[in-house]
Amino acid sequence: MSQLDISCGLEYITTPDLQNCLSEALRCNYAFIVSPIVHPRFRRPQCINSRVGGFTRSDMILSPQDWTSRIVAKVSSYINVDSDSLVVKQRHEDCLNEELGYCRGLGVPAIMLSIHGRQTNNLARILQTYYETSHHPSLIWACVPMVCNRTLRGSNPEDNNKNCDNDEKAWNEPWNWWSGFHERLEWDKRVGVVLELSADLPSQDIVKRWLGEPVKAIILPTSIFHNNKKGYPVLSRAHQQIVVSMVEREAQVIVSGARRSNIEFYLQYLYRIWKRRPNPADDPMLSYARGWEDYLQTPLQPLADNLDTHTYNVFEKDPVKYDQYQKAIAQALINLQKAKAIEKLEAYNKSKKDEAVDGVNVSEIGQGEGKVGESHNDDTITIMVLGAGRGPLVRASFNAADITSTKIKVIAVEKNPCAVVVLAAQVREVWRDRDVIVIPGDMRQLKLSPKADIIVSELLGSWGDNELSPECLDGAAGLLKAGGISIPCSYRSYVAPISSPRLWAAARAASSGVTPQKEKNLETLWVVYMQNKHDIADTKLVFTFEHPAKAIQDQEGQELSDYRGLPLTDNRRSTSLTWKVEQDNVMHGFGGYFDCSLYGSEMISIVPSTHSPGMISWFPVFIPIKTPLRVQKGDVIKATFWRCVDSRRVWYEWNAEVGGHITALHNPNGRSSEMLL
Amino acid sequence: MSQLDISCGLEYITTPDLQNCLSEALRCNYAFIVSPIVHPRFRRPQCINSRVGGFTRSDMILSPQDWTSRIVAKVSSYINVDSDSLVVKQRHEDCLNEELGYCRGLGVPAIMLSIHGRQTNNLARILQTYYETSHHPSLIWACVPMVCNRTLRGSNPEDNNKNCDNDEKAWNEPWNWWSGFHERLEWDKRVGVVLELSADLPSQDIVKRWLGEPVKAIILPTSIFHNNKKGYPVLSRAHQQIVVSMVEREAQVIVSGARRSNIEFYLQYLYRIWKRRPNPADDPMLSYARGWEDYLQTPLQPLADNLDTHTYNVFEKDPVKYDQYQKAIAQALINLQKAKAIEKLEAYNKSKKDEAVDGVNVSEIGQGEGKVGESHNDDTITIMVLGAGRGPLVRASFNAADITSTKIKVIAVEKNPCAVVVLAAQVREVWRDRDVIVIPGDMRQLKLSPKADIIVSELLGSWGDNELSPECLDGAAGLLKAGGISIPCSYRSYVAPISSPRLWAAARAASSGVTPQKEKNLETLWVVYMQNKHDIADTKLVFTFEHPAKAIQDQEGQELSDYRGLPLTDNRRSTSLTWKVEQDNVMHGFGGYFDCSLYGSEMISIVPSTHSPGMISWFPVFIPIKTPLRVQKGDVIKATFWRCVDSRRVWYEWNAEVGGHITALHNPNGRSSEMLL
Repeated sequence: MSQLDISCGLEYITTPDLQNCLSEALRCNYAFIVSPIVHPRFRRPQCINSRVGGFTRSDMILSPQDWTSRIVAKVSSYINVDSDSLVVKQRHEDCLNEELGYCRGLGVPAIMLSIHGRQTNNLARILQTYYETSHHPSLIWACVPMVCNRTLRGSNPEDNNKNCDNDEKAWNEPWNWWSGFHERLEWDKRVGVVLELSADLPSQDIVKRWLGEPVKAIILPTSIFHNNKKGYPVLSRAHQQIVVSMVEREAQVIVSGARRSNIEFYLQYLYRIWKRRPNPADDPMLSYARGWEDYLQTPLQPLADNLDTHTYNVFEKDPVKYDQYQKAIAQALINLQKAKAIEKLEAYNKSKKDEAVDGVNVSEIGQGEGKVGESHNDDTITIMVLGAGRGPLVRASFNAADITSTKIKVIAVEKNPCAVVVLAAQVREVWRDRDVIVIPGDMRQLKLSPKADIIVSELLGSWGDNELSPECLDGAAGLLKAGGISIPCSYRSYVAPISSPRLWAAARAASSGVTPQKEKNLETLWVVYMQNKHDIADTKLVFTFEHPAKAIQDQEGQELSDYRGLPLTDNRRSTSLTWKVEQDNVMHGFGGYFDCSLYGSEMISIVPSTHSPGMISWFPVFIPIKTPLRVQKGDVIKATFWRCVDSRRVWYEWNAEVGGHITALHNPNGRSSEMLL
Repeated sequence: MSQLDISCGLEYITTPDLQNCLSEALRCNYAFIVSPIVHPRFRRPQCINSRVGGFTRSDMILSPQDWTSRIVAKVSSYINVDSDSLVVKQRHEDCLNEELGYCRGLGVPAIMLSIHGRQTNNLARILQTYYETSHHPSLIWACVPMVCNRTLRGSNPEDNNKNCDNDEKAWNEPWNWWSGFHERLEWDKRVGVVLELSADLPSQDIVKRWLGEPVKAIILPTSIFHNNKKGYPVLSRAHQQIVVSMVEREAQVIVSGARRSNIEFYLQYLYRIWKRRPNPADDPMLSYARGWEDYLQTPLQPLADNLDTHTYNVFEKDPVKYDQYQKAIAQALINLQKAKAIEKLEAYNKSKKDEAVDGVNVSEIGQGEGKVGESHNDDTITIMVLGAGRGPLVRASFNAADITSTKIKVIAVEKNPCAVVVLAAQVREVWRDRDVIVIPGDMRQLKLSPKADIIVSELLGSWGDNELSPECLDGAAGLLKAGGISIPCSYRSYVAPISSPRLWAAARAASSGVTPQKEKNLETLWVVYMQNKHDIADTKLVFTFEHPAKAIQDQEGQELSDYRGLPLTDNRRSTSLTWKVEQDNVMHGFGGYFDCSLYGSEMISIVPSTHSPGMISWFPVFIPIKTPLRVQKGDVIKATFWRCVDSRRVWYEWNAEVGGHITALHNPNGRSSEMLL
């Protein structure tokens, strides 16, 4: 039996919550403790007194469950299955297979091995065989240093320029080792990286790139700690930040190396910097999104399906969104009042013959005609809430009317019968003395009279138009007076190319492992609170929609209209975008966002640079590509997105290219994902 | 209804066999005739008098079957769905969809469209939708010129160097259009190219690259014909060669443009150059392989399965292979006689005490022991034919013995019971007066005495060791005397990176369209007579095997042996190869070959540069890669091949990389293809 280093020197995986396990850990010379940092119930660490080669009694103390959940096996460090020597390669391959077989037998949750260079072809091959042949394979933790000292030493201190180059190379090199290794394993989500921090730290760009990788643990050599005035070991501010960012992404922490201070001090210190981090409770989004990090959800289809009460509950809780709507409605009311006042003045000055012509006459197509309200005078402003749900926008409208002292009539249109019941109850009980009526039905099929001065809707998805707001509002264009106001008046979708092995692997594996499904999963938009990702380049505008929408024109410039006399709009879109790559990376897809002008200057946005503070209603979307593309500094990424429409549905298609490498076209003819009209 | 150009000007698809259809075609002004050139029964062409936009009576004369088998629809040439103008793009997209819908309705076998540049993203997308939405989609024929005149004109005649560059660019450009377009359609085998020949022709390299593409037709403008002395239209020698090479690869020929001569003369001339081409019957391989071009077969597993009589029939017909074996055996007999003579002399000079010790004692493991032959004196040379099949190597041995006047005893070992019956019959009837015995059984499990002076086998597959010759012969090492001869004494496998959309698409689609199968198909070796392919770089050596094989050594340099005392050999291999790319291309996989040293200088080879003339027993193998890799001039292709062995089977794994792009590992743990021991 060859040797398996289960531990090596004085190494601890610590978690900030772990203070009281320290004393026990201290009693042993060797320990390698695994415990998920986010686990609610912390388990006390177990220690192993000796190498596994020869079992000692204290090894055997570990229960089977400890072996399968708390021990990380370490592959012998001498093993080099990518040696140039055929004999060495073959012998080490036999040794590695023996050690992997031993790990398989022990059932350890993870196997740690070191990567020392770009040559990982044979290693990756052997690990793939290991995965192919194991029913319960362990995670693989690939350990790389943050900087390649070999490359750094290659620098010539006299040539400053070359030095700089070498410096950058030395920081890039270990990422290339890891990334190439992970690519050879097809970005398998069971494979993660362990990063050994160095005393010097690289540029923020390189740190950020590491934050996009699935870092399972970071190693802090005791040598990178300094002693403060009181003699306690502390880290530089930059190191602290990395530790916190990594632990936030669920990395564990290993303190390793010569014991230069009391172990307890390291642990207490790490615990303190974790506690001292910015409180996530201060940001509503952070506390709301907790537990949803990198968790993929399929987008809602509120048009095709009816939302349930839980979903309404979540959306109505947003502390920001309805404030913004209220402000926008108030602004619109003020402007309308002004316009009406001017109009009235002009009308009065001209003649008095146009008085009192409007009768109220609301009719529904297919449901016969019916009076839906009493007559009201000219000063009343009609607000239609299209897709009123359980009424938050009705509330916002009344609030806005109260603030601006405007007389309004609210018509709440809602197609979901359950929501209509709630709305009707509110009309009876909450809004008894308000001028409000509820119209059940699909906004695209209603004909109401009088028409609205303002229509208010909240039909946007995470990527803006992806819940078919354009089609719904264009279909409801007949409900709005000429010159009336739509809130929102425009919205835009955005994308940025991103690197995220974790999101990509999660998307690929999202449902059962059948291959056709796998392809489908990578041709779908995913709603996800993205955390373990890295932006390769800036966020750019994709599609724009405006309301009321303009009709398309024929060759003579004449605007076209449909059979109901509504403007014939074209909500198909296509856009090609290009980005310059600033750093070697691997592109796994796009992050998708939107922003939206409600009215005047009132906006809501989930674009990272302009995100409405505290707004929690939308997570972004992740748009995967089927084959990740390796990109190099200076490359140009070109991506094309199509929004396609037929009589029954809407869908997106996309592809991307870098250099001569083109991805397949994603989702042709909406074969994998579509939104039903 | 928008216009569909079914024909355009004076265009004929001609086939050399088509003489008598000419008169009919001449009577019409417009015709576009489709008829497969290799089809046994030629169908007379049909003609259409007018464009399809408005049907005329003569259109309607076409029978439904004519529409579905003989008409190529031509997409309106003005259509540009990749225009920079959004309005043009959207309108043309509508037009194209209308025309495609019309083609779908007509059920034409193919749709021809022109590609004018690299912008084909939207076109490819629309065609993918067309494929997704059609039950019986037509073939797509993408028409490109051989040279890009735009690029050519861009050249500056004063700057010679730049001119040269531009020249090369102009020839490369249309290939890039086509290749990019085909890549966007994921190398769909329903998509082919139509090449319009130019008056000037490019370098051989560029022509060869086109020969690797699925060229469905070539267009010969009448302007590239010259008039010979008698006034008949003729082509330059270079053009003739291209026409013949293309038609050999099943391209059809379209003569197009102004009628400068009697149409019949063009046709007669084309017919003549086709007939004048080198006669395929002169090359046994060409005539043998006819009809098998680019047809994929799974490799045989003669060890796991027993071959049937048809397969033996084919193999025994080889006019070259057994000649080579006979020569090798003769050479070995001569050398053995010489050695024996010297030995005898020495022995005589020393003493006479070693006379007549050998008794004949043949035993079979698991089948009891039994005498299998009478005793014979020292001059007799024992030849064991391992895997004798129906006896061709036994015959070759007797022939060699007769030629060299050697006394031999042949022991024919064969595991296939059917073949043993045939062998036994031959012993009784054909070889009655020969010293020959048949031993049924697996060569790896037999123990025979006396041992052989020579073992002869023919266990090679298309990629050399891929039918497990190394394992069989190592397992039979106990049958050979120390210092005995193995024929073959060594063999080597080779690969070259190749481009072949056709082979790749054929491999992908080899069985039913299920996706898991698709992946499997691209992790398998295919035996195929490759024709529609292009070598990207040279053929290089992969693995070498020698017999008798040397044992592996332990750390002290001691040779190891197995439980039967046979040398413990290691037939695992791994090799990394690199190639420099000389021309932009797309790599779809590898061509695999072998050569084999029988004895002395006698070789057999299917490596293209050293192919044994007239030997037909082996087609090469095609080794696909799952995702084709685009390669650029100057790139380095690196490929790694592993030969893996476990106790029950042998398999290959491979991957390839170009620049930063790495393919997945193919066939990990032999999950998709393996050879059973």
